[in-house]
Amino acid sequence: MRIFEEMESEVRGYIRSFPAVFDTAKGSEIFDEHNNRFIDFFAGAGSLNYGHNNTTVTEALIEYLQNDRIVHGLDKATVAKREFLKKLRDTIFMPRNMDYKVQFTGPTGTNAVETALKLARMVKGRSNILAFTNAYHGLSMGSLAVTGNSFYRDESYGLRANSAFLPFDGYMGKAFDSMAYLRKLLSDQSSGVDLPAAIIVETVQGEGGIHVARDEWLQELESICREFDILLIIDDIQMGNGRTGTFFSFERAGIKPDMVVVSKSIGTGLPMSLLLMRPELDQWKPGEHTGTFRGNNLAFVAATKALEYWDSPAFADGITHKGKLFENGLNAIIEKHAKIEAELRGVGMVWGIEFSDPDFASSVSEEAFARNLIIETAGANGQVLKFLPALTIEEKLIEEGLNIVDESIAAVLKSRKDLRDGVLA
Amino acid sequence: MRIFEEMESEVRGYIRSFPAVFDTAKGSEIFDEHNNRFIDFFAGAGSLNYGHNNTTVTEALIEYLQNDRIVHGLDKATVAKREFLKKLRDTIFMPRNMDYKVQFTGPTGTNAVETALKLARMVKGRSNILAFTNAYHGLSMGSLAVTGNSFYRDESYGLRANSAFLPFDGYMGKAFDSMAYLRKLLSDQSSGVDLPAAIIVETVQGEGGIHVARDEWLQELESICREFDILLIIDDIQMGNGRTGTFFSFERAGIKPDMVVVSKSIGTGLPMSLLLMRPELDQWKPGEHTGTFRGNNLAFVAATKALEYWDSPAFADGITHKGKLFENGLNAIIEKHAKIEAELRGVGMVWGIEFSDPDFASSVSEEAFARNLIIETAGANGQVLKFLPALTIEEKLIEEGLNIVDESIAAVLKSRKDLRDGVLA
Amino acid sequence: MRIFEEMESEVRGYIRSFPAVFDTAKGSEIFDEHNNRFIDFFAGAGSLNYGHNNTTVTEALIEYLQNDRIVHGLDKATVAKREFLKKLRDTIFMPRNMDYKVQFTGPTGTNAVETALKLARMVKGRSNILAFTNAYHGLSMGSLAVTGNSFYRDESYGLRANSAFLPFDGYMGKAFDSMAYLRKLLSDQSSGVDLPAAIIVETVQGEGGIHVARDEWLQELESICREFDILLIIDDIQMGNGRTGTFFSFERAGIKPDMVVVSKSIGTGLPMSLLLMRPELDQWKPGEHTGTFRGNNLAFVAATKALEYWDSPAFADGITHKGKLFENGLNAIIEKHAKIEAELRGVGMVWGIEFSDPDFASSVSEEAFARNLIIETAGANGQVLKFLPALTIEEKLIEEGLNIVDESIAAVLKSRKDLRDGVLA
Amino acid sequence: MRIFEEMESEVRGYIRSFPAVFDTAKGSEIFDEHNNRFIDFFAGAGSLNYGHNNTTVTEALIEYLQNDRIVHGLDKATVAKREFLKKLRDTIFMPRNMDYKVQFTGPTGTNAVETALKLARMVKGRSNILAFTNAYHGLSMGSLAVTGNSFYRDESYGLRANSAFLPFDGYMGKAFDSMAYLRKLLSDQSSGVDLPAAIIVETVQGEGGIHVARDEWLQELESICREFDILLIIDDIQMGNGRTGTFFSFERAGIKPDMVVVSKSIGTGLPMSLLLMRPELDQWKPGEHTGTFRGNNLAFVAATKALEYWDSPAFADGITHKGKLFENGLNAIIEKHAKIEAELRGVGMVWGIEFSDPDFASSVSEEAFARNLIIETAGANGQVLKFLPALTIEEKLIEEGLNIVDESIAAVLKSRKDLRDGVLA
Repeated sequence: MRIFEEMESEVRGYIRSFPAVFDTAKGSEIFDEHNNRFIDFFAGAGSLNYGHNNTTVTEALIEYLQNDRIVHGLDKATVAKREFLKKLRDTIFMPRNMDYKVQFTGPTGTNAVETALKLARMVKGRSNILAFTNAYHGLSMGSLAVTGNSFYRDESYGLRANSAFLPFDGYMGKAFDSMAYLRKLLSDQSSGVDLPAAIIVETVQGEGGIHVARDEWLQELESICREFDILLIIDDIQMGNGRTGTFFSFERAGIKPDMVVVSKSIGTGLPMSLLLMRPELDQWKPGEHTGTFRGNNLAFVAATKALEYWDSPAFADGITHKGKLFENGLNAIIEKHAKIEAELRGVGMVWGIEFSDPDFASSVSEEAFARNLIIETAGANGQVLKFLPALTIEEKLIEEGLNIVDESIAAVLKSRKDLRDGVLA
Repeated sequence: MRIFEEMESEVRGYIRSFPAVFDTAKGSEIFDEHNNRFIDFFAGAGSLNYGHNNTTVTEALIEYLQNDRIVHGLDKATVAKREFLKKLRDTIFMPRNMDYKVQFTGPTGTNAVETALKLARMVKGRSNILAFTNAYHGLSMGSLAVTGNSFYRDESYGLRANSAFLPFDGYMGKAFDSMAYLRKLLSDQSSGVDLPAAIIVETVQGEGGIHVARDEWLQELESICREFDILLIIDDIQMGNGRTGTFFSFERAGIKPDMVVVSKSIGTGLPMSLLLMRPELDQWKPGEHTGTFRGNNLAFVAATKALEYWDSPAFADGITHKGKLFENGLNAIIEKHAKIEAELRGVGMVWGIEFSDPDFASSVSEEAFARNLIIETAGANGQVLKFLPALTIEEKLIEEGLNIVDESIAAVLKSRKDLRDGVLA
Repeated sequence: MRIFEEMESEVRGYIRSFPAVFDTAKGSEIFDEHNNRFIDFFAGAGSLNYGHNNTTVTEALIEYLQNDRIVHGLDKATVAKREFLKKLRDTIFMPRNMDYKVQFTGPTGTNAVETALKLARMVKGRSNILAFTNAYHGLSMGSLAVTGNSFYRDESYGLRANSAFLPFDGYMGKAFDSMAYLRKLLSDQSSGVDLPAAIIVETVQGEGGIHVARDEWLQELESICREFDILLIIDDIQMGNGRTGTFFSFERAGIKPDMVVVSKSIGTGLPMSLLLMRPELDQWKPGEHTGTFRGNNLAFVAATKALEYWDSPAFADGITHKGKLFENGLNAIIEKHAKIEAELRGVGMVWGIEFSDPDFASSVSEEAFARNLIIETAGANGQVLKFLPALTIEEKLIEEGLNIVDESIAAVLKSRKDLRDGVLA
Repeated sequence: MRIFEEMESEVRGYIRSFPAVFDTAKGSEIFDEHNNRFIDFFAGAGSLNYGHNNTTVTEALIEYLQNDRIVHGLDKATVAKREFLKKLRDTIFMPRNMDYKVQFTGPTGTNAVETALKLARMVKGRSNILAFTNAYHGLSMGSLAVTGNSFYRDESYGLRANSAFLPFDGYMGKAFDSMAYLRKLLSDQSSGVDLPAAIIVETVQGEGGIHVARDEWLQELESICREFDILLIIDDIQMGNGRTGTFFSFERAGIKPDMVVVSKSIGTGLPMSLLLMRPELDQWKPGEHTGTFRGNNLAFVAATKALEYWDSPAFADGITHKGKLFENGLNAIIEKHAKIEAELRGVGMVWGIEFSDPDFASSVSEEAFARNLIIETAGANGQVLKFLPALTIEEKLIEEGLNIVDESIAAVLKSRKDLRDGVLA
């Protein structure tokens, strides 16, 4: 590990939470250089919905490389890109009656968010964007301006411009209707909240701590956007690609966003991002937004292969089924350890346990790693234990992983009790 | 091609300049789906310095994939990342007596630029950044604020904050000393130009039209930065990785930037970006800047392999030699077609011909494509024909390509003459 | 009137609502050039709390001018300025146990607000400022950024930076605790609302439509400011100088703002503004904020004279008494005309009637002017009839004025009924 | 003086340079409370072009007050305002063939500048404004963004937006053509300088250090503005009202600005400001920009009276004549004290001596005050001694004042020599 400490910036993070040098991986298992095996409940922060080194994907990549097919293509037409577009249209758009234009952006989530915000501003001729408390949309300057967490915001960045934050569903408790508040702010020309070009929202806030917006809330948001001529942008970077049970996370609410930001698992772990937009919004001039790696053809090959999972409804059914396993398992764990005063939140295959003690989640994550489970925390203060496994995870690994969580919670409780009792840890 | 028109955003660009569906590629040759062969003088806008599907790189990638080694790693430690760091240290930093910390950023150039600007602002506690006329640093909001071309800037983006532009070397002709101007602005507390956290500069402006800063100018810039406690950031995205004859483009001037932004060819065409910073600037808190794809391990494998080119001085010598072939060949072409009143500019293996007629370059590019050569234009109005071949290009392909350029210029001249003479084209 | 139409900008406003050429004025009566008499319930938008051409003030001004005493003094020391400072200290600060430093700013309200915001930002080293829905703090760029009404905000102004708006007391109804919301936003580091340098607030929103903050709300605001190290700025431009019953409007809540912005009636109608600040906030360097007319000595003479009203408690008692006359009279009017579905709000001698029909207030104002009463509207859409008489107004003028309001409401009701009934107006 | 130290903010400035408590004043003489007489070469920073307590003005004010005529009028029509508009039209606009609409703004210079910038941005739909090195346009946030001196700019103000600075005439020496530079920046879409709504300029920079723009430079600036559809705003706050020899300072160059900002002496020392605009730019909605004291009728009365000076050409001739007295007198002084290596700059009745030693000017000002002459410094570091007397000053006071300057320079030279020689001062 010494060379990382010597050469890599202090900014490195996960290497600290999960201090091992990893080498190989398959599905939901990762192995370090000493061949220690770990179960992965983190899935590349949602980039590995189809698991590590998914066999059919890997085989397609190897064959592509063996034939010297084009890897770096800028935004030139390639056979691999054409195949991806066809598959996206036939497997995703057509069955859902969707009509979106596709923009290949720089292959990071934040690049795609930046693109969406620029386009929305340009089309509407307004610079304001509304976002929500606890929102996480990325860390480049445009995206950071709509990201809530002040940990990432420095006074010197000069970020505080052309965006405003609203309470997300449930932020002020169930009694407060945050959509009524939004409607009032927009209706009242003296509210100080200028008419925005767009509202950007995650249907489930992942980094923010697994806050699930209710369907009615999302529907009301859509209807306010229509009423006030505001574009609705869904940031589906972490929650898309099947995470919540359907390909797009907003399908459950039956809404039709004006733009959708897609990234993470779309390329099965290879850098790739898309902006989907209603055709009439596609007002770019040729080359007006560009980027060197927007033609990452390896990712197109992987994505095309992965979309085959969506050919039949079995895949979505599996998400629902496994999601239930998590929900039930976690509820049982919470019940068992009543002292932790925890709240379970989630949908599909994204779940979070918020502990009343803000440090508890990271202690559990640490104990879990000691037991060979990789699991992350989320929320403003890392107070939420976050379950984000591959959608392809085997049931026995779910069971094994949940057992480790159970043990880890017990271990944390015990060590805290010992501490209180004056027992040496 | 129909599916691209139907589904892909109007923003698509190169597909219009180079209307073919490409399929395979090797070194400096690309083939479309009908197996038509093209010589590539564009090299993925500088991402393919080692050529398409460089054999040793591709073999390493295939082997890596075949062994199910980790592809997506966030910023966890992996064996592949460790190998890259070692190779970078041993082959690049040590022989050059460099001591930089390395930050793996989101794998696009603009992500790395954003990271540099944020860090500079944070460390210095100042929000201002100075950039230069014709600068191109990327299109996300932070980078766009230091990019000169108004084609990319929309009033609604609200970009005009915390940056100011200065004349690049030669911008106002040779008589004007732009560094004296900068020194005056900084010395004079009433100049309206606030002390910046950093100055960001390309040693050769690529997108801006192949403007080569003189060594003395860069040295004076460095010395002003030292004098006024300003960080010097070199954006080496397009000009690094050997493009100008040395691994970093600033080596020729003997300067020591505080930060260096590296991307494009570092991953041989796979998305990868680095920020290098002097160790005392590494003031990030763990996780303070992050990104999903900053651990693109396939790129690390490719990068480690590609750095072997720098094990011996032969590679750099080859760049110099081939650069001369371009310089001489292009000078001969310009002399031959005196009417075009063209100016040749460049260094190493980046060259540009600026034509007095601003539309000439794109006509030549078009004619060249008809003759199976891919070559791009640059500059504010695309008035510069830009030569950016792979550094590994064979001499016979250089010759073949230059002949096509010669013919293409002749063809454009003829068609314009015909037009003037009333002859049907 | 023709020359006004010919030469004065279209921006002119009150000349349209009150189309007469005024010439003389005394107390609460104004006379046009044809000697038509009007009762004044507007009092220079709160600048004439001591009435027009208050006799003792006018006499002092005449004597000052007759003796060629200094009129324009920049910020040099003058006898008149010294007298004012003494009087302010002895009559206002000492009996209230206040310890503020005094800054003479450019003599407009917005200048004083700008000064407060700059000082707060500089002292705290934070750029963010929080303001409230319906806030009105002025129209220069710094003040406009914390003014809610979008009528004054143009996309091109680039205003949307370093400020955010919160719901004022009662904005979302009585059930919503806007201070709990503020506390949550500030406690939650992921709320998107960065810690501000200051919160600026009017204790009663005048231009915003006569919204009276409750004492408890103001106390809670003060206590949040203390808890989070935020400066509390009271904008007392319109509500200070006795308008609400005490010299400063915040006295009723027993709070101690960090800064107080004073203007309008302080100079009895002559341009004058002050910023009061806690001594430890006075971190200006000499000359760091300046302005040509901050030494308007005529205003100092007038202000010194006017402060004599505060020598005894009788003046404040009179405000309370006359305020009651308004409250009772207006309640009677509202009861009488039940159809108008109006709400009365106010305190001291500032009252507003909000009509359910947003156009009603301006119709009443128009009818009143036809009956020789000058009365303005307020609120985002001018939906509130605003009573802002001089504090020195005679009781019989109050009665006379209220009768006109009564008649005017009746007249508007009648004309609307006629309209509905098809009767020609 | 104690009460000033006790109660007034540390920001107070001139009270420190001129430590006396002033009481009366007439013409160009001021008297302190002990009846010490001072000659005034400062004239209220250019607000007292017609002298202190100009007799005809004062008489008119007294009569106005004695008749209880309206003092505070908001923007209602008053007889006094009508008289002023007529006089402005007949005496100033008509003989000069000018056709401007008049906007009465808040009565400070910075308010009028803010108004001009807002209107320019709104009309052109562009937020960018260009200003010049050493520019001074005021200290509220909109004006401060186009003011060069960083002494007034704090990082926390978040000012650096929507403005850029260009070199003023002569800034980089005579060899550098700053208008050619401007033209290049605007012609080149890749310069980083976005097309501005307006360029704001002082024809002579007063606070900036008495830099006089050449006629040709101003003409070229106007012609660039026309060519690129940019509004030209002349800030005539300090240099208008006859200061440079004509009523407006730009008359000498024969240019026709789109907007003119007028303040300072227009009201003879009483707060008053105007924005003049070409009629087609008058696109305000009624009430869209407002301010409590924009109807300062005492100032209108004074202004109407003062404009009588312009009824005959004698007044302008007098400025030229007295300006010559200054020019000759100052040249003689500079020649006499060759050691000071001073440069004289100026026009009309504004002159500045820049000393090579930056501290020299303030020492001279101090010595002069000790000899009962009030004279200020200007420039980024106060390195310029600034002559800004009333235009009505008597010739014998000019002579007396210049003698004091001569003596003061001698005294400073002597004390510095003594210091070097080790003589006790």
